[in-house]
Amino acid sequence: MTKIRIITPLHSLSAAVSGSTLEELQPLEKLGIAFDEACLQSGPASIETHFDEVLCAPYTVAAAIEAEKAGVDAVIINCMGDPGLYAAREVVTMPVFGPCETSLHVAAMMGHRFSVVSVLDSVRPMFERNALLYGLAGKVASLRMVNIPVLELEDGSPRLLERLLEQSRLAITEDHADCIVLGCTGFLGVAEQLEKKLHAAGHPVRVINPMPTTALIAAAFVHGGLAHSAAAYPSPNKEKPIIGFTMPTWRKK
Amino acid sequence: MTKIRIITPLHSLSAAVSGSTLEELQPLEKLGIAFDEACLQSGPASIETHFDEVLCAPYTVAAAIEAEKAGVDAVIINCMGDPGLYAAREVVTMPVFGPCETSLHVAAMMGHRFSVVSVLDSVRPMFERNALLYGLAGKVASLRMVNIPVLELEDGSPRLLERLLEQSRLAITEDHADCIVLGCTGFLGVAEQLEKKLHAAGHPVRVINPMPTTALIAAAFVHGGLAHSAAAYPSPNKEKPIIGFTMPTWRKK
Amino acid sequence: MTKIRIITPLHSLSAAVSGSTLEELQPLEKLGIAFDEACLQSGPASIETHFDEVLCAPYTVAAAIEAEKAGVDAVIINCMGDPGLYAAREVVTMPVFGPCETSLHVAAMMGHRFSVVSVLDSVRPMFERNALLYGLAGKVASLRMVNIPVLELEDGSPRLLERLLEQSRLAITEDHADCIVLGCTGFLGVAEQLEKKLHAAGHPVRVINPMPTTALIAAAFVHGGLAHSAAAYPSPNKEKPIIGFTMPTWRKK
Amino acid sequence: MTKIRIITPLHSLSAAVSGSTLEELQPLEKLGIAFDEACLQSGPASIETHFDEVLCAPYTVAAAIEAEKAGVDAVIINCMGDPGLYAAREVVTMPVFGPCETSLHVAAMMGHRFSVVSVLDSVRPMFERNALLYGLAGKVASLRMVNIPVLELEDGSPRLLERLLEQSRLAITEDHADCIVLGCTGFLGVAEQLEKKLHAAGHPVRVINPMPTTALIAAAFVHGGLAHSAAAYPSPNKEKPIIGFTMPTWRKK
Amino acid sequence: MTKIRIITPLHSLSAAVSGSTLEELQPLEKLGIAFDEACLQSGPASIETHFDEVLCAPYTVAAAIEAEKAGVDAVIINCMGDPGLYAAREVVTMPVFGPCETSLHVAAMMGHRFSVVSVLDSVRPMFERNALLYGLAGKVASLRMVNIPVLELEDGSPRLLERLLEQSRLAITEDHADCIVLGCTGFLGVAEQLEKKLHAAGHPVRVINPMPTTALIAAAFVHGGLAHSAAAYPSPNKEKPIIGFTMPTWRKK
Amino acid sequence: MTKIRIITPLHSLSAAVSGSTLEELQPLEKLGIAFDEACLQSGPASIETHFDEVLCAPYTVAAAIEAEKAGVDAVIINCMGDPGLYAAREVVTMPVFGPCETSLHVAAMMGHRFSVVSVLDSVRPMFERNALLYGLAGKVASLRMVNIPVLELEDGSPRLLERLLEQSRLAITEDHADCIVLGCTGFLGVAEQLEKKLHAAGHPVRVINPMPTTALIAAAFVHGGLAHSAAAYPSPNKEKPIIGFTMPTWRKK
Repeated sequence: MTKIRIITPLHSLSAAVSGSTLEELQPLEKLGIAFDEACLQSGPASIETHFDEVLCAPYTVAAAIEAEKAGVDAVIINCMGDPGLYAAREVVTMPVFGPCETSLHVAAMMGHRFSVVSVLDSVRPMFERNALLYGLAGKVASLRMVNIPVLELEDGSPRLLERLLEQSRLAITEDHADCIVLGCTGFLGVAEQLEKKLHAAGHPVRVINPMPTTALIAAAFVHGGLAHSAAAYPSPNKEKPIIGFTMPTWRKK
Repeated sequence: MTKIRIITPLHSLSAAVSGSTLEELQPLEKLGIAFDEACLQSGPASIETHFDEVLCAPYTVAAAIEAEKAGVDAVIINCMGDPGLYAAREVVTMPVFGPCETSLHVAAMMGHRFSVVSVLDSVRPMFERNALLYGLAGKVASLRMVNIPVLELEDGSPRLLERLLEQSRLAITEDHADCIVLGCTGFLGVAEQLEKKLHAAGHPVRVINPMPTTALIAAAFVHGGLAHSAAAYPSPNKEKPIIGFTMPTWRKK
Repeated sequence: MTKIRIITPLHSLSAAVSGSTLEELQPLEKLGIAFDEACLQSGPASIETHFDEVLCAPYTVAAAIEAEKAGVDAVIINCMGDPGLYAAREVVTMPVFGPCETSLHVAAMMGHRFSVVSVLDSVRPMFERNALLYGLAGKVASLRMVNIPVLELEDGSPRLLERLLEQSRLAITEDHADCIVLGCTGFLGVAEQLEKKLHAAGHPVRVINPMPTTALIAAAFVHGGLAHSAAAYPSPNKEKPIIGFTMPTWRKK
Repeated sequence: MTKIRIITPLHSLSAAVSGSTLEELQPLEKLGIAFDEACLQSGPASIETHFDEVLCAPYTVAAAIEAEKAGVDAVIINCMGDPGLYAAREVVTMPVFGPCETSLHVAAMMGHRFSVVSVLDSVRPMFERNALLYGLAGKVASLRMVNIPVLELEDGSPRLLERLLEQSRLAITEDHADCIVLGCTGFLGVAEQLEKKLHAAGHPVRVINPMPTTALIAAAFVHGGLAHSAAAYPSPNKEKPIIGFTMPTWRKK
Repeated sequence: MTKIRIITPLHSLSAAVSGSTLEELQPLEKLGIAFDEACLQSGPASIETHFDEVLCAPYTVAAAIEAEKAGVDAVIINCMGDPGLYAAREVVTMPVFGPCETSLHVAAMMGHRFSVVSVLDSVRPMFERNALLYGLAGKVASLRMVNIPVLELEDGSPRLLERLLEQSRLAITEDHADCIVLGCTGFLGVAEQLEKKLHAAGHPVRVINPMPTTALIAAAFVHGGLAHSAAAYPSPNKEKPIIGFTMPTWRKK
Repeated sequence: MTKIRIITPLHSLSAAVSGSTLEELQPLEKLGIAFDEACLQSGPASIETHFDEVLCAPYTVAAAIEAEKAGVDAVIINCMGDPGLYAAREVVTMPVFGPCETSLHVAAMMGHRFSVVSVLDSVRPMFERNALLYGLAGKVASLRMVNIPVLELEDGSPRLLERLLEQSRLAITEDHADCIVLGCTGFLGVAEQLEKKLHAAGHPVRVINPMPTTALIAAAFVHGGLAHSAAAYPSPNKEKPIIGFTMPTWRKK
């Protein structure tokens, strides 16, 4: 049994934290993966700006340390901005995944050029940053938005599906994408239908559903004993004082 | 049980086809993956030039079609040049993996910059091509060579290990690599030792062993129902005549 | 007299092999260039996918070796995918040309940004690969398609000309191309008319007709004793056995 | 009088917060710029890892809001990682500067290729990230390190100067840099001497001292009424609840 | 008092040289900057082609030498092609600015992606060249043109403003620009109105007015003793004879 | 008979203008190419800085107009900086070649990565500019210098040959170049010997001799009726006054 913790980088009182992510992942449980979800003790209600990213990152890292102490095998940060990803890798030895990093690499392996369809224009710079940072800017056909704020997303809503379909079709016909990456981990209950509708419309593309896709890769890492390079993510100096954040102590790598 | 076929893109009489790859993969069988290996009816004895790649590609594709007919779940082409990879994807619906493509993406997820250590300077252009083609040229710290021809490789030989260690250390200290990708699928029985020796020398990098790493990702694809985009790899027109190659017929996607 | 052999990488029974290429090149004979054409003993009927490329490459290379034995001065592979180009260079000492590589470099010398207008969306990844591989991705304004399969092309047909004109105008006005590269060596008998019509429409661009353009550069190489670098294209090891392909023997460089 | 606040993104009890930065900036006061310095209510003692960056970012942003309320004209974040830079820009209307972003652009205006000389190899990925993110990766000749941790830096120490000189000379002679960017805002009291010694050694390069250079550009922005684009840095939704961080309220742009 | 000379790289009899630039800069005089303007003894009437650039460059450089002799503190070349910029830096020790180089770097600091709106398609290659040369090609959202020749520009004309507004809106909505760089230093008297109209239309972008922006940065350089690297811009050998150009003698750096 | 004029962009009294270029080209005369050489009425004595480039460009363009009037078929600008190249193309309809542009494209066709070996570090920025501008930066293995000023070059001198050999060997072994481009058109009488010595040392690279190589491509253009795109190089407005330069009138394209 592989234990994966989903760290939803939002405070637990947020409307956006609804357990739906675990439902989305439930089909993977038959593969011997057990999921649980943790929210943050402190953080924002949703992530749509750099400010939201900055607020959620410290306690995302804390949650990763707690997860390792609790004996989970890997964690996934539940946001396409991948907030706190590199910092979390520095303080734990188990693998830590961002759904954006993982989905972009999987998309690059599935086809030649992918488009990301996300929520609002305000997240455009984060995807441009991530594509550059992950070395995959050359594989991006386009970034497109459904123009629905995160807190208005409803799982599997027809309005969401319709807008995703519209933007995906434009990504395929105008921008020559051959894969579509769902650009928000709050786009729940729509991936399969979107792919079916695109196939029905004559576009045999793949739709990458970021959280299940990332969970599959995370489980593969755990199975094979793969993990992030400690040369790339060196342990911070534990002797340096930290004031004002109640960080759990971490194991030195 | 996930069935993965290793297509070794060499003719079966070649000295380089030794069953050792299955031994390298044997530790993954406990994860419920069954491996078998197929060689080519026609092809070269080893792959070190574009000429060798061209010779092995047609029957690598044929072997992929045969593999799908035989009911395997995925195939991996056993060469870091990934010969015939895109063509094979066009004629089968199961996923097809190249160890170079997969290892480079995994390396890019494990750290910030990786080096590939391979056999001879004559393969340098193939790695440059692949890094460009897979969109990851910006993640390559360097390409380095042990200067041993493929047909002189001996599994786990001290000479090979020593040269890998030497070039890996240079990649780390001179080129700032934080991951080392073994650049030949014939580098067998050395990955673990190399990683240990590098750690002992104060370099906590990851060494990516291409075939097991690719098998893990392949199994993840199979488990999750992921596959390559048929928009990226459209089925060739089956009505067009082919003369002189005895290709098995393939299913139209 | 410079002897250039056109290697049409298709089997000789194919409808696409019609001698029209020699007609297209005929105006260059007054420059002292003699052309002949060879087809393949084994191969596909047209080239529109990676699969087609893989099938044509081995006997394209064989044909290059035969051409050198026959005393020709240079060969040109008659397909914009440039199949087998690098492999052929490894086994002969005379220069070998791909019309895509040559046309893209000539286009880059003629203007600032060029567009390629080719047949079908399925060849888009090949042009993207070639532009990357030849180092010219930054010079590509766009790739556009006439949406006519190779086997339906008719030399100089009004339908072809009209579609080329339409896509070329879009490339110029939308994508800011200042040169148009014909993206299929089967686009015969149209280059001059297309350029005239574009000039008449107020677009003083250059239309690059790939086979004559490549023949001019090939002749220049022959005249000046230029050839490909044997450091870039080293001779394969002739001692390594090849099984199942009837390759002519080649001279070691 | 232009008022610029230096936000040192460290908690005030840290040994690294010493008032020396204000001394370094003192020569600019004659230009009519008044500087003051604020530390963080919560944060790390120095910044050498992504973890440190994550910890300092939330209260760096809070300090920027407080600075705007206090009526300063611009703020500069006192760290070459530019932590919290984009987030801070989202919540204030005055300009916010990172010394890395500003110094890299100034270096790109002063010469053709610059090198950054910083503290430890662990900060290498942050400079690679910033160079990519600011669009200037093509201008970087190299990143080089003096291998002294931040908390061991002493203002103007001979050891620091010697190591900076050594690495700068290598950057010039080996990597062809024509400008040297000091890669840590804790490198105090050395810029002028370093430039003089390099000139004396026959290398007429410019040494960019990040905090004074950034202050000059910040003052230019203030004088001219320039500021960051609110389209690039949109105001976060003020209605969304934040839990666990005591953020000052900000003005909606 | 900082003395900045505007070198308008046109001959003094040209209709395009009207003193309007000094009016545009007049608001900066309250900052203690004194401007004057010099035209060329020989040159073209406006700059819209490479030919125009070539003609204006020699006497632009001569004017820079004269300016240094006259005791000015910095010069700005009054054309977005930045003609003669690098050559002028080689022969003077004071800083020399091009409005294109400076504006592009400022735009890159103000937002994530900028568009340049300029005069005619014939200047497109110069902006592509400059963006590449200054290392900022990755920050360019688009180049757009108002299609008005330089000599038909009228300061603050409604037609110009309308066309700038139209192209800027397209740059924002179609190309995702968050800053607009005015792409001709002859676009006078329009920057503020354009920015206001864009804000009124719901686009809170920044409009970069190149000459005042460059003057602010130039004054910052002068105030801080910053200048271009003599390693990047080495002094030409003064012993080499020059025939046919009446160049003033310059100080050896 | 094809008539090619070499425009040496130096004034005729310069020691660097010696007729040696015509000697270097003499072997091509048997191909039916007639060469003559023109110097400038005004210009510098050699080209090693941007200042030299700026001085030679106007009368290089004038010489191109005169050449077209004299009935030559093509011109080649005799300097690896390609000064005035784009401007010259705007005012003539015959093709105009720069040896740098042409040699870099030929080198990119001959191998995978080339190095340029030139005179002095002061020309390094010009080659970086040209490689970027011609779209070939990704093909450059390295730039290396012999450290001999242009005016000290002696045709075929042993010192020059020795230094070229030394730098070429480093380019091959350290930088993995497979072609060497001679980086100064004043490196006369050495190309063949250099290539022979490199071959003898076990490096089967190609040495590209820029002027003969460019002449071959120029002749190919003339033979085939190829020329530069008038959309890329539009004719300057002939009505605009020019003051102080005695430009010959040009034909409007």
